[in-house]
Amino acid sequence: MLVHYRDEEAMRSPMQYEGGVLRLIDQRLLPSEARWLTFTELETVAQAIENMIVRGAPAIGCTAAFGLAVDAWAADPRSTWDSYSPRFEQAVLRLARTRPTAVNLFFALDRVKALASGFSQGLLMEQVRTEIETLAIALHKGDLETCKAIGRNGAAHVGGRSLRVLTHCNAGALATAGYGTALGVIRALHERGQIEIVYVDETRPWLQGARLTAFELASENIPYKVIADSAAAYLMQLSKIDMIVVGADRIAANGDAANKIGTYSLAVNAAHHGVDFYVAAPLSTFDMMLEGGHMIPVEERHGDEIRLTAGRYMTPREAAVWNPSFDVTPASLISGIITERGVLTKPFDRTIVSLFQ
Amino acid sequence: MLVHYRDEEAMRSPMQYEGGVLRLIDQRLLPSEARWLTFTELETVAQAIENMIVRGAPAIGCTAAFGLAVDAWAADPRSTWDSYSPRFEQAVLRLARTRPTAVNLFFALDRVKALASGFSQGLLMEQVRTEIETLAIALHKGDLETCKAIGRNGAAHVGGRSLRVLTHCNAGALATAGYGTALGVIRALHERGQIEIVYVDETRPWLQGARLTAFELASENIPYKVIADSAAAYLMQLSKIDMIVVGADRIAANGDAANKIGTYSLAVNAAHHGVDFYVAAPLSTFDMMLEGGHMIPVEERHGDEIRLTAGRYMTPREAAVWNPSFDVTPASLISGIITERGVLTKPFDRTIVSLFQ
Repeated sequence: MLVHYRDEEAMRSPMQYEGGVLRLIDQRLLPSEARWLTFTELETVAQAIENMIVRGAPAIGCTAAFGLAVDAWAADPRSTWDSYSPRFEQAVLRLARTRPTAVNLFFALDRVKALASGFSQGLLMEQVRTEIETLAIALHKGDLETCKAIGRNGAAHVGGRSLRVLTHCNAGALATAGYGTALGVIRALHERGQIEIVYVDETRPWLQGARLTAFELASENIPYKVIADSAAAYLMQLSKIDMIVVGADRIAANGDAANKIGTYSLAVNAAHHGVDFYVAAPLSTFDMMLEGGHMIPVEERHGDEIRLTAGRYMTPREAAVWNPSFDVTPASLISGIITERGVLTKPFDRTIVSLFQ
Repeated sequence: MLVHYRDEEAMRSPMQYEGGVLRLIDQRLLPSEARWLTFTELETVAQAIENMIVRGAPAIGCTAAFGLAVDAWAADPRSTWDSYSPRFEQAVLRLARTRPTAVNLFFALDRVKALASGFSQGLLMEQVRTEIETLAIALHKGDLETCKAIGRNGAAHVGGRSLRVLTHCNAGALATAGYGTALGVIRALHERGQIEIVYVDETRPWLQGARLTAFELASENIPYKVIADSAAAYLMQLSKIDMIVVGADRIAANGDAANKIGTYSLAVNAAHHGVDFYVAAPLSTFDMMLEGGHMIPVEERHGDEIRLTAGRYMTPREAAVWNPSFDVTPASLISGIITERGVLTKPFDRTIVSLFQ
């Protein structure tokens, strides 16, 4: 089965897939270089997630599904499911070990596992790989549609004003199958002529805001300014922010939301200044197994992400570093959660449950 | 007149002065390289302040005073004050144009101007230069003593507990004549065995925390961890911060305090989490001419400080950037202002006025 991603929308996706071959744009090099890498083995796909060649909760989920398709394509097409299934289990476990916080990864793996549970022992791998890749492609296309619905719902909710919006990290096309969640809302607002300016937190230590969000906004001529993360509060003090919208990596059943480190600081400042604070995320980001945000596992990454800049130590070499990749914003600080099914408001514990019923 | 700075304390100072020659350690290169630069002309001293070879409000003040000594030494020692004084006026104006926010700069310039106002027209430059350098040295030594008093007062005020302290930017020996203001408090607490750990905001965009504060703490074996600025709120949420102490670049008569960008965000978060928030600064940092913080001029620096990392663009090349170097924390969010004359508490408008009476 050949699947082509040639249309304009798909060009905005950070991934392309065709017949067992996954291509990812190396997000570590953007915006100065647009280098596409090719993957034909599960292990290198797993490492691409770990090393943040691809990042962003929905994009990680899509990549994992495509990773399982890649692995199935690497098997002999004339062999059968019973001989491959132990390897499939290992592949799922390997991908599940890559990054702990974004639940979309586990959502995607669970979807493929559910599909695989229906395979008969004698099913030819030629058929298995087709079924897995068909699902992966459906998840990818579904995520793109989901993002557009999030954008529509968010833009409709925040109404007809011209807005000065702040965002953190990159919850854009590069973090999803395309279009983006938080940046999807901003795109939809821009299409309605409602964006006065987007302030972009540079988002240390990886600078996803400076590198990726600014790149996406520049590509579409949406007016923006990049700021140091620590300057956001000052902007709010100066009454220059109307609303904040961010993505999420995992949302608990009560509405507590894990997102890129720094999100919580913004939420506290938003509450202090009376600025609306929105989280934009698909249903696949909700983890109904977790009662509250304290149960969300928060990844801590290597200290060298803080210590080193362009290979040079910015700290003493042996400096101790605390480098959590995420923090958890309590539901009480969130004005609304923008999903593909509508904008949830308080009390989130009730509105979220009703969404999943 | 020869002045030697050879003792251990002076080695911690970011500047050395002897007979018309000023030496500054290039703080842009620390901690990876300790390069001392030599200055014998006023213009290069002014540029050293502008380019942040030397930074930190008290250190800028000391450097400006030494700059005027350097300029006087460059004049013919057999000439007289009447021929030099127009050049002196220009030198004062040049230094006053370097950076707008730190009031210590203007305090130091005013002190030298007051001295000069007593010079007779026929005073030999040999005598003028000696008098100016004597004052500059006195200001420098006075700042060192002031920092130690700030340290003592702060440590005595916060009491006998073991503390987990957060600081932002560098208000240390490198930002002063030595010892530091906020870091002076931390040094004094450490001498009393009261520091459990210091969390150090890396402090974008210049990374004064990662580069300078971590360097100073490592040099004295004070336990510390470097964090991304945006992670500070998460630390407070986890109840891992007992107090925050920062320096200041200018404090208005009502207690509003300008300090490195990001300070305000910390103060809002400290209030939200019930964490004590202290500002440590000498009397020379108070600007009694300004009723409130809204009157403090806030420097905006070049966008390339955000755009470029090690000469490489981290944003689109033409990215718009907002890069304020400072923000203003309202007095209402400050628990106490630690000075060489004691720790001021609310209501600051009264306690500050009584300090200057």
